[in-house]
Amino acid sequence: MNASTNTPAKARPGLAVSPLAPKNSPRLGPVAGVRLTGRAVGLKKKAGAKDLMVAELAPGTTIAGVLTRSLCSSAPVEWCRANLPHGRARVLVVNSGNSNAFTGLAGDRTVEHTVTEAAKRFKCKRAEVFVASTGVIGQPVPQDYVAGHIGTVARGLSKDGWQDAASAIMTTDTFAKLATRKALIGTTEVTIAGFAKGSGMIAPDMATMLGFLFTDAKIPAPVLQRLLKRAADRSFNSITVDSDTSTSDTVLLFATGQAKHPRIDAKSAAQSPRQSAALLKDFARALDEICIDLAQLIVRDGEGATKFAEIRVTGAESRRAAHAVGMAIANSPLVKTALAGEDANWGRIVMAVGKAGEKADRDKLGISIGGVLITQRGQVVDGYDETPVAQHMKGQEIDIHVDLGIGRGAATVWTCDLTHGYISINGDYRS
Amino acid sequence: MNASTNTPAKARPGLAVSPLAPKNSPRLGPVAGVRLTGRAVGLKKKAGAKDLMVAELAPGTTIAGVLTRSLCSSAPVEWCRANLPHGRARVLVVNSGNSNAFTGLAGDRTVEHTVTEAAKRFKCKRAEVFVASTGVIGQPVPQDYVAGHIGTVARGLSKDGWQDAASAIMTTDTFAKLATRKALIGTTEVTIAGFAKGSGMIAPDMATMLGFLFTDAKIPAPVLQRLLKRAADRSFNSITVDSDTSTSDTVLLFATGQAKHPRIDAKSAAQSPRQSAALLKDFARALDEICIDLAQLIVRDGEGATKFAEIRVTGAESRRAAHAVGMAIANSPLVKTALAGEDANWGRIVMAVGKAGEKADRDKLGISIGGVLITQRGQVVDGYDETPVAQHMKGQEIDIHVDLGIGRGAATVWTCDLTHGYISINGDYRS
Repeated sequence: MNASTNTPAKARPGLAVSPLAPKNSPRLGPVAGVRLTGRAVGLKKKAGAKDLMVAELAPGTTIAGVLTRSLCSSAPVEWCRANLPHGRARVLVVNSGNSNAFTGLAGDRTVEHTVTEAAKRFKCKRAEVFVASTGVIGQPVPQDYVAGHIGTVARGLSKDGWQDAASAIMTTDTFAKLATRKALIGTTEVTIAGFAKGSGMIAPDMATMLGFLFTDAKIPAPVLQRLLKRAADRSFNSITVDSDTSTSDTVLLFATGQAKHPRIDAKSAAQSPRQSAALLKDFARALDEICIDLAQLIVRDGEGATKFAEIRVTGAESRRAAHAVGMAIANSPLVKTALAGEDANWGRIVMAVGKAGEKADRDKLGISIGGVLITQRGQVVDGYDETPVAQHMKGQEIDIHVDLGIGRGAATVWTCDLTHGYISINGDYRS
Repeated sequence: MNASTNTPAKARPGLAVSPLAPKNSPRLGPVAGVRLTGRAVGLKKKAGAKDLMVAELAPGTTIAGVLTRSLCSSAPVEWCRANLPHGRARVLVVNSGNSNAFTGLAGDRTVEHTVTEAAKRFKCKRAEVFVASTGVIGQPVPQDYVAGHIGTVARGLSKDGWQDAASAIMTTDTFAKLATRKALIGTTEVTIAGFAKGSGMIAPDMATMLGFLFTDAKIPAPVLQRLLKRAADRSFNSITVDSDTSTSDTVLLFATGQAKHPRIDAKSAAQSPRQSAALLKDFARALDEICIDLAQLIVRDGEGATKFAEIRVTGAESRRAAHAVGMAIANSPLVKTALAGEDANWGRIVMAVGKAGEKADRDKLGISIGGVLITQRGQVVDGYDETPVAQHMKGQEIDIHVDLGIGRGAATVWTCDLTHGYISINGDYRS
């Protein structure tokens, strides 16, 4: 371990670290106003596995969040949904080991209990406590399950607890996922640091996409929410491992307001969005980048993944249409097994474009893989030579570009291949 | 082979017949007004593999059809779409080996050429010739590819050519798929016979769902279309192997009008649908049944399938909503790998219900597997014992029932498990 990086640690029991894991994980510096840690308190079966994280945020911290669209969302997600509109946060409590999803009214009571305990200990309002849980679905959760351990964990809070915090929210992840960026607001440098977990949109019983981001910038909650929504659409909502959506997906962004930069006023941001946009342009860039970093790390830890694919769609009717076409390709089991088989099977890409339900014209469709144009105007190009494409398919990083040729909408999404490893992890799991 | 059944023949090169294949395949009797056959003419790589089928229909035959919703549909599909409104058919020509999809204007010309040749030989209008193709996508098709062989194949036409015809449309199928039903219109018995192919909604480069149905009933095209649409929604549109949609999916129903039954008038059927409905009630029942038969055979030949699952959704807001929830469950890779792993993993069913986007209430959801109630009112039932459910999961036929508890909409869909076999067939294909 050197000053700037940590070596990712093996975490999924019995499973090797993903071959797509980055060689180094960034070492996160302190973010003024944030103290955090992660500890093992016995919620996970494996002895000594970290399973509870707590973060304390300075008074005045604002919050933004995006939550699962699942209609069967978990009790912690429903708590966050109810309290995000207040826009203020002082504590974040996240456990792994049990998702507290589909646990009925008892699950709601467990959340209430956790929040009450945290509010008492950190002397804040209950509405300023945010919670998330990941792990088994549908297993009853005792009221004290999390609440009983908050005191113990809180004693370890530190401005340097990033790696421990990131490890404590992992379930089937094979490596901890951390990222950081600097940005200028005016001439003041601010930091964004964060971590995420997930190795499927949802994984065997107990996975979920969670992402937590912290900055020392001072940004009103409504503005923060707008920035996070935009960044999440271009990152966490543009990845897929298996097309499944968790009951617990949660991304929260906390702004402690400790940095001294020109004031960003929610009212004037609404009144003169262009001026506010100029001031926040670099921050928005950094936020987009850190979210894309974390989202890509989740794909790189996709269950059984051996290839990382970037799918760029251009020439669509709109950005929304381009995103839908990209996700149809990224979710197609036939495209994903072709990636696994290193098969330059562009016919399956045509099929996926066709089923996306967005405006497309067979006779205008262009497809490139690894920068080599394969089809143009609805048919294979004259003298197409598969050799360089086949070579590209043998690599770990695959580039696919689809041009619909009908408009100016563009979007990029990321996916991984579908392999025997995925079937083994999810199908052979209990056999 | 006895008088009433044929033993299904192995067809997918190098692959064993699906373990879910029925032990016997029905022997189809003649349908008055239908002569058909299938021959090997060298379109498939494997020598001697049947690859071209032709059916001749008696003058006066009406037709109905449902076609892929893919926006990149193949040239043959576009020909059918353009000519179905005429409502009359005399010839059906179907080849396997090349799907003539994504072949640009050259592909359209090949279809024109095939249709012209067939119309000349059978002395009918070009609009009365229907075509379908299945096989590799995007490979150029010479103009004479099919047309040059129609004469040879036509010499073999016979009222008993069902098995040969069904074999000639297969690609990655491991067994031929045939079904038949009798129905009464008034007091007259009519026959419906048909065959289908497909072992994925789309399979490795060259598969597609094709279904062809023939009856001696005399039913005007608009009425026939209404009946087929309804039957297809409850059968072919209620199955999934891998959620992918082919560029070539085609189901056609031909009514030769040779049977002597009370007249069904399109105008009076429109004016007094109830009277027409009474007369056609038994025919509609038989058509629904034969379509469900064929659709289930496709799932039973799902690539790599080892389990056949029926998913019944009740208590939804509408039939449409129930169908959407059923398909979300049936398409979920996590549910399908749990089936493969014989894992009574009902948490994944909750997740799939949540992501379907239809109205649902976590606290009203009931789930049963193999007739055993597991969850009720949003949580696991008291004293739930997994033993009988685990036993049921070990079988080849799995029953899942989900009750949303909020309305009266119901639908049933069918799927298979997702196994290492699927990955091998689609991913290891060219490696």
